[in-house]
Amino acid sequence: MDEINSRFFGNASSIHSFGQSAREVVDQARSDIAKVLNSKPSEIIFTSGGSESDNLAIKGVAEGILKQVQSLSSTRSGDDNFKPHIITSEIEHHAVLNTVKELEKERKIEATYIAPGKNGVIKAEDVERAIKPNTILVSIMYVNNEIGTVQPIREIGKLIEKINLQKQEKNKKTHTSYSVLYAPNSSRIFFHTDAVQAPEYFDLNVDYLHVDLLSLSAHKFYGPKGVGILYKRDGVKLKHQIIGGSQEYKLRAGTENVAGIAGMAAALRQVESRKSKVESISNLRDRLMTGLLKISESRINGSIEKRLSNNVNISFKNAEGESILMMLDQAGIAASSGSACTSGSLEPSHVLTAIGVKPEWSHGSIRLTLGKDTTEEEIDKVIEVMPGIIKKLRKMSPLKN
Amino acid sequence: MDEINSRFFGNASSIHSFGQSAREVVDQARSDIAKVLNSKPSEIIFTSGGSESDNLAIKGVAEGILKQVQSLSSTRSGDDNFKPHIITSEIEHHAVLNTVKELEKERKIEATYIAPGKNGVIKAEDVERAIKPNTILVSIMYVNNEIGTVQPIREIGKLIEKINLQKQEKNKKTHTSYSVLYAPNSSRIFFHTDAVQAPEYFDLNVDYLHVDLLSLSAHKFYGPKGVGILYKRDGVKLKHQIIGGSQEYKLRAGTENVAGIAGMAAALRQVESRKSKVESISNLRDRLMTGLLKISESRINGSIEKRLSNNVNISFKNAEGESILMMLDQAGIAASSGSACTSGSLEPSHVLTAIGVKPEWSHGSIRLTLGKDTTEEEIDKVIEVMPGIIKKLRKMSPLKN
Repeated sequence: MDEINSRFFGNASSIHSFGQSAREVVDQARSDIAKVLNSKPSEIIFTSGGSESDNLAIKGVAEGILKQVQSLSSTRSGDDNFKPHIITSEIEHHAVLNTVKELEKERKIEATYIAPGKNGVIKAEDVERAIKPNTILVSIMYVNNEIGTVQPIREIGKLIEKINLQKQEKNKKTHTSYSVLYAPNSSRIFFHTDAVQAPEYFDLNVDYLHVDLLSLSAHKFYGPKGVGILYKRDGVKLKHQIIGGSQEYKLRAGTENVAGIAGMAAALRQVESRKSKVESISNLRDRLMTGLLKISESRINGSIEKRLSNNVNISFKNAEGESILMMLDQAGIAASSGSACTSGSLEPSHVLTAIGVKPEWSHGSIRLTLGKDTTEEEIDKVIEVMPGIIKKLRKMSPLKN
Repeated sequence: MDEINSRFFGNASSIHSFGQSAREVVDQARSDIAKVLNSKPSEIIFTSGGSESDNLAIKGVAEGILKQVQSLSSTRSGDDNFKPHIITSEIEHHAVLNTVKELEKERKIEATYIAPGKNGVIKAEDVERAIKPNTILVSIMYVNNEIGTVQPIREIGKLIEKINLQKQEKNKKTHTSYSVLYAPNSSRIFFHTDAVQAPEYFDLNVDYLHVDLLSLSAHKFYGPKGVGILYKRDGVKLKHQIIGGSQEYKLRAGTENVAGIAGMAAALRQVESRKSKVESISNLRDRLMTGLLKISESRINGSIEKRLSNNVNISFKNAEGESILMMLDQAGIAASSGSACTSGSLEPSHVLTAIGVKPEWSHGSIRLTLGKDTTEEEIDKVIEVMPGIIKKLRKMSPLKN
C-alpha cells in the first residue's frame, strides 16, 4: 500500500497517465477479487467497509424496488400498494439488523426476523416458512460475529433459487416479466449474505453459495481498515446510496481508495493460500475451549460443530464480562464482549439473548478469537490466568446469591 | 500511516489495550482537526471522503427534518404538509448537486439552484432572494472544483445567521421553539459548504465562516484517499446514512479507518504550516495563464481575482478537450477536463454551461492545477508545448468553419 501511495497516487478516474496507472491498480484488484468470488469483475463494488456494503445491499434493493413501484403505478398496470417484505435474522450484525428495523419503522417495508435455534444456527426451513408473496430480499449472515456459528447459506440460496424459478414459470404463463413488475407473487427474491466473518475459513464462491449479494470487509482478513466489497450479481438493481460522481458503475460515488483496494485484494489472495491451516487453528481453539470449560459454571455459546474455527464465546455465570476483559487485558490478553461496534453498551448481546442465554450468564460472556499467528503458548497462558480472574470476580459479584 | 498500521492495528471501538491505543490515535486526530477548524472535537465526523460527507450533510438534514415533521404531525400541532426547501447552486460538485436533485425528484423537498455570474461566483444577494419560509438548508461550495472560483461563504453565512436570529426573535414572541417545530417561517436554516477544494489556500475556521456543516476530503490536501470529514455544528440534527454500530456519535457506522484518519490529520497540520507559500504559487499560476493566453482564441473561465491560487481553467475555441489531454499526457503533463468524477462523459461541463460558456468553447476546455512542488520549469514547459497541440487539433477539428 505504501508503494501504491507513492507510485500510483493519481485519481483513478482521471484520464492522464497518472490516473490511468491508478486505474490499472484498481482494475487488477477487482479482477483478483472476482476470481476468489467466482464472479465477474463488473459485479464487484468497492465500498468503505462491511457496514456500508450491508447498507447498500439492503437499502439499495428495497429503495430501488420502491422507486420502480412508484414509477410503475403512474405509467402502467402494477400494484401501487405493493409493500416489499424483507426476511432477516435476530442475530445479524447491526449494520443489517438496524437497517432493516429502520426501513420497517419508516413503513417502507415489512420485515420478519427469524429466530435462531438454541445452537445459534438459522434453519433453512424457517426462512422458507417466512417467505410471503411480497418478499423481495432475504439477508442472512454467513458466520455470526459474536458466537461464530455458521449459517446454511448454500441451503438457503438453493431454496430461494428454486422459489424464483417457480415464480418465473408462473410469470411466463401469465405473461409477467418479474424483472420489471413488482407485485405479489411475481417479483424475484434476492439473497444477501453478510460474509464479513467468513473469508478466513469458508468458500466465497457466489455461485456455489447461490447468493445475489455478499458483503466483505478488508480488515477482517488482515487487510486495511476503511475498505470493503459488495458483490452484486448481474441483474440485481440497486439504488445508489452515496450520490455524486459515476464511480463504481454509478452505484457508489467517491474517489477510489486505490491503496486500500489494492491492499484488500492482496490480503484476500493471501487468505486463499492460507486456508489449508484451518485444521491447526481449530485444534488450538478446541484446546482453549476444553481448558476454559474446566472452570465451574462455564458454557460455550452457540454450536460447537457449526462454528468458525477460531471463535470461542464463553459465559461464566455470575461474573461481569467487562471486568473479565479488563483483567485479561492487564495480563496482556485481548478479548471482547459482544461486538466492538456495540462496546460501551450496557444491554446484553442481542445474539446471546436470541439464543436464549439468561442474563446471569450473558453478562459474564466474552469472546476470544484466534489469529493466524496464535501459538499454543498463548492459548495455555489464557487457560492459566482465567480461573483466578473468574474466582476473584465471582467473589465481588453482586449477582451471586 | 505505515507505523499506525503496524503499531496500532486494534479496532478503535474495542475495550482492550490494542483497541484503546487505536482509539487514542483517532481521538488525537479528531482534536488536531478540530483545532484547525476552530470547532469542538465532538463536532468532527469521520467519513470515507468528500462525497459521503456531502451526502450525509444534505440527506442527513433533509431526512432528519422530514422524520421530525412526520412524528410531530401525529403527536402535536405542526404543519404536516411542511415540505422542506433547499437552496444550492448550479455549479456544485455532483455529490451535492445530484443529491439535491434526487431528493427533489423523490418529492421529499423543493429546491432552488442559484445561477452564478458569468465570472463563476454566486452572489450572496441571490441566496437571500431565494430564501423561502420553508428553507431548511443552503449548500454552497467554498471553491469550485473545475474553475477554482471562490464563493462568498462568510458573507452568506452571516446573512443566514441574521435571518435565523430574526426567526428566533419572532418565535419567542409566538412561543415557538424552532429547534423542535418545523413549520414555515419558524425553522432554522442550516448552512453547509463543500470545502473540499479549500484547505490548501483558505481559512477553515467554521465560526469565522458562520457555517453549520462543512465537508472535507483528505486526498485533496495530500492526505490519503478514502477518508474525509463532515464538520457538524452542535445542535444540527442529522439522520445517519450508514446504519449499524454506534461509531462517530451514532451518525456513521463502520470500523474506524485508524491509519487513514491519522494520515488525514497529519496532512491537515502540514497544510496549515504551508499556507505562507500561497503567493509563490499564484505567481506561477499567473505566469501559466499569461503564457497560455498568447494562443489565439483562448480564454480563462471564471473570475481571475476570486480564484484558487493554483487553478487554471482555459478554453481553446474549436479544439477538442479530451484530445488536448491526450497530447499533453504524451508530453508528460497531467491535465483534466471537467472533474475526474465525471470523466468519460460526453456532456459539456455543467459548470461551464452555468457560466454561459458556449459549446464551441466549452468542448475545448481543460483544467491545469499547480501543486505545492510545481516548478517554473514545469510551467514553462506547458507554455512551450501547448501552442503546437492547439494548432494541430484545430487543423483536425470538425468544429472549425
